[in-house]
Amino acid sequence: MDIEDDTKPRTHVILDAMGSDNHPQPEVDAAVEAIRSLKIEITLVGPEMVLRSLLDTSGGETDSIHIVHAPEILRMADKPAENTRRKQNNSMAVGLGLLKSGMGDAFVTAGNTGGAMANALFQLGRIRGVKRPGLSGIFPSKNGRVIVLDIGANTDCKAIYLLQFAIMGAVYGEQVLGFKLPRVGLLSNGEEPGKGSLLIQEAYPLLENSGLNFIGNVEPKELFGGDVDVVVTDGFTGNILLKSSEAATKLLVDTLRAELTASPRNQAGALLARPALMKIKKILDPGEIGAAPLLGVNGLVLIGHGRSDTRAMVSAIRTASQAAEANLLGKLQTALVDKLAVVAPD
Amino acid sequence: MDIEDDTKPRTHVILDAMGSDNHPQPEVDAAVEAIRSLKIEITLVGPEMVLRSLLDTSGGETDSIHIVHAPEILRMADKPAENTRRKQNNSMAVGLGLLKSGMGDAFVTAGNTGGAMANALFQLGRIRGVKRPGLSGIFPSKNGRVIVLDIGANTDCKAIYLLQFAIMGAVYGEQVLGFKLPRVGLLSNGEEPGKGSLLIQEAYPLLENSGLNFIGNVEPKELFGGDVDVVVTDGFTGNILLKSSEAATKLLVDTLRAELTASPRNQAGALLARPALMKIKKILDPGEIGAAPLLGVNGLVLIGHGRSDTRAMVSAIRTASQAAEANLLGKLQTALVDKLAVVAPD
Repeated sequence: MDIEDDTKPRTHVILDAMGSDNHPQPEVDAAVEAIRSLKIEITLVGPEMVLRSLLDTSGGETDSIHIVHAPEILRMADKPAENTRRKQNNSMAVGLGLLKSGMGDAFVTAGNTGGAMANALFQLGRIRGVKRPGLSGIFPSKNGRVIVLDIGANTDCKAIYLLQFAIMGAVYGEQVLGFKLPRVGLLSNGEEPGKGSLLIQEAYPLLENSGLNFIGNVEPKELFGGDVDVVVTDGFTGNILLKSSEAATKLLVDTLRAELTASPRNQAGALLARPALMKIKKILDPGEIGAAPLLGVNGLVLIGHGRSDTRAMVSAIRTASQAAEANLLGKLQTALVDKLAVVAPD
Repeated sequence: MDIEDDTKPRTHVILDAMGSDNHPQPEVDAAVEAIRSLKIEITLVGPEMVLRSLLDTSGGETDSIHIVHAPEILRMADKPAENTRRKQNNSMAVGLGLLKSGMGDAFVTAGNTGGAMANALFQLGRIRGVKRPGLSGIFPSKNGRVIVLDIGANTDCKAIYLLQFAIMGAVYGEQVLGFKLPRVGLLSNGEEPGKGSLLIQEAYPLLENSGLNFIGNVEPKELFGGDVDVVVTDGFTGNILLKSSEAATKLLVDTLRAELTASPRNQAGALLARPALMKIKKILDPGEIGAAPLLGVNGLVLIGHGRSDTRAMVSAIRTASQAAEANLLGKLQTALVDKLAVVAPD
């Protein structure tokens, strides 16, 4: 007998309270804000006394917020592999341990990306069949958003990794971002089939036969133009893609800002043009999604930007809870088994 | 007895008149304008009757402008390798033939990049010791300009190619762009030594021991921030770097433009902010350098953007004549022999 279960446990997000550059204030504020609008529980991981004191003075309802003590912090400068061994009580490792033990449904951190990947792989392992987990990122486009992976987990890739990134990226887009039959493209230096490095030429037929909605090679203009939903690339190229678009737009915005404050006439223009400038700021703002998953590890791990503020952390918590509610992990497992059996049987 | 030679022949630039998207008007106008300010001779290569008629109606002084007939055009859609054989009388092939025969000092084209590379390699061959010619590009930065190579000639590279790109890029920066002891960086997904793909890890020690002013790994933020003068990368990554920064800034500028014309208030702002917007346009404008050399072929070949207008073509002619006057080809030959003997003897 199937009865709708009102006592179904709430989605439980484990949040590294010490990840962002300005930790733990944005994390604590975001947790308080998130439980107002979302039916979730949150566990904050970090130094208990510090977090308790911030929670107590937050003025918000904190019944659904738990704290698990972790005395150490994995800093940006720390070498990931070393610290996975040395700083075993860092907030990231403790949080991932909670996820592994089933204490929560998803883990969110805005901390050191390399550290998060190393810790996640070490503690959770990979989804069955996955050769290499891929770090996804959300890019702005003319029409909305584009998933790109890998943006930095694997500097050297084989064609089969790219196929797996494509499968996982498509599932993520469909289940969490609401893309219908996501268009998957292979990042290359030209659109024609046959263009690209040896890796791309080898990956192309795998994607073509994957059953995915593969639209062929794409260039950055298709990505930012909104003509593709999931862009697949190796972690070296993806990282350069991410950082070059960030750095080029920063040069532009900095120049614009300097010019707009250079003379009274320009300042008047800036005031009037403010709505336009705000729109640009919004396009460049990573805060709306907040965090993107590390796809392929055996658990839901989402990594946000170190610069995340409270709003970005709230978005990250929301994205994590959506991913958990959509059973992203289970869907990834099924899709990988289905598609890989067809395309690349062991 | 050394006497200053007033009869020294002028620098002679061979110009593909049929290269740019709007050929041959920008090329012909640029030739007429260039000989006004530069002490050079120009040979226009293309359909003689068309070019002669345009020159005759240009109203300018045309004594130093010659025409060499080439009836065919290498179009963007043409497959480079095929056409090197089939369309043997295309303006690019004829122009490169003139360069090879010593009729001129440098060849400039705004045509199909792949076609130019294939034709140049086929007709001129490589500088002794060069494994692969690299296509250089000029990027904007906070402080001025940065040379990047390879931006698309070689999708798969070996470490020794990157070393050679570095040597050639540094010579070009020093001899033509006036960089003093150019800072050379290796494009990577992190600044620390040891970061990067296997290719980067292998190239790093070669560059470290090259005698160049090697500043280590650089990320796109150093490039656009002006902290490096020559950035070395493989042609696949370099092409993605180029196109992603172009596409990301285009998204930004398009959004800004759409917003600034969306309401009367915004339009007033746009009018007042016009100087700031012009400054941005200037940063994104490839027209100031006009063309960048294909480094490593045995001749001075400069390739400009297909979108080149008259101003861009004049800049391209000027850059070509500067490269010829600096004896860039000879300097490249010497530097390669010197540095490669030390770093990577055969």
